[in-house]
Amino acid sequence: MQIAIVLYDRFTALDAIGPYQVLSALPGADVVFAAERPGPMGLVSDEEGRLIVSAEAALTDVPRPDIIVVPGGPGQRDQMADGPLHAWLRDADQTSTWTTSVCTGSLILAAAGLLAGRRATSYWMAVDQLVKFGATPVAERVVFDGKYVTAAGVSSGIDMALALAGRVAGDRVAQAIQLGIEYDPQPPYDAGSPDRAPADLVAALRSRSG
Amino acid sequence: MQIAIVLYDRFTALDAIGPYQVLSALPGADVVFAAERPGPMGLVSDEEGRLIVSAEAALTDVPRPDIIVVPGGPGQRDQMADGPLHAWLRDADQTSTWTTSVCTGSLILAAAGLLAGRRATSYWMAVDQLVKFGATPVAERVVFDGKYVTAAGVSSGIDMALALAGRVAGDRVAQAIQLGIEYDPQPPYDAGSPDRAPADLVAALRSRSG
Repeated sequence: MQIAIVLYDRFTALDAIGPYQVLSALPGADVVFAAERPGPMGLVSDEEGRLIVSAEAALTDVPRPDIIVVPGGPGQRDQMADGPLHAWLRDADQTSTWTTSVCTGSLILAAAGLLAGRRATSYWMAVDQLVKFGATPVAERVVFDGKYVTAAGVSSGIDMALALAGRVAGDRVAQAIQLGIEYDPQPPYDAGSPDRAPADLVAALRSRSG
Repeated sequence: MQIAIVLYDRFTALDAIGPYQVLSALPGADVVFAAERPGPMGLVSDEEGRLIVSAEAALTDVPRPDIIVVPGGPGQRDQMADGPLHAWLRDADQTSTWTTSVCTGSLILAAAGLLAGRRATSYWMAVDQLVKFGATPVAERVVFDGKYVTAAGVSSGIDMALALAGRVAGDRVAQAIQLGIEYDPQPPYDAGSPDRAPADLVAALRSRSG
């Protein structure tokens, strides 16, 4: 079971690593980090420029993954034009079992034409943009629509991947993975969603990104 | 504010990236991935061998970090003998503001002599081992004892880092980071702790690791 996690410059680290940590524990999982244009030594940099990850494969090396994972991040904006990544996504999606995204990765899937007519989610500040691509934005943490699985912002990729692990390998395997990563979250604040964070913080983050 | 995240061969990816995603958002944060012996091109491999990360610095390049983060992982077992990592930890700890760990990273801190007489936690399967090093094992998700902050398994590094962010920069900054990573966890199962996971699963994981 090949799982291709797409990397591009200025991806958000946890978007990719949350699902990676979960899905790589699936029985028979063969996870590959793949990039359109791996840099020197195949290195790709995250949004902070401090996490430098080696993409082992070019997208063209992995034409038929069973599971596709597209992370988000500030670099998503550079991945919205039709081009090799979109072409790869459309092609790989024809035979994938699951096509998934975290955070603004869903905007890339949508821009590639894969979410038209689908229910989907994204980062809370970006979810409304899905309308532009014919998708129906849903403010939920994980959205399944057929084989398309989209997650909300950054950390939600962990929840998405666990839910996906359950579909792929059964509840017991997914529960074992959850126990293996001791995923018993206890956030010290209740500020992780725009519904419950202080309103002025929500406004501040919106204006900062504008 | 320099934050040194220690890497070593076969670290667990999310142990390092959870705190990285949170702490790199602190105002003035300068995060450095540092390894004792960076391999060719400074590359360090995680436990799965699929995530290859570039350690920008040798430990000796960052002698005085403000915050130290030590992840866990299967490779922790190779880091228990006294040697350059322990010597660096003891030295850097003399001037650090916070010395922290995720998962079995606390066993490395303990083996280096830094947790004697301290309350500390670790991965649920490893927490009892802290006794050997004179620490008091605590089955909590995040444990503060003075400047020493230890987290339970893998995913708990996110909670630890948010709690630490609150101490370092105040609740409002920490809440903004939580909202920024949309950390509103909704695990699809309630199996993330040995207290609540099915007992046979807990036993199965214990026997697998034995």
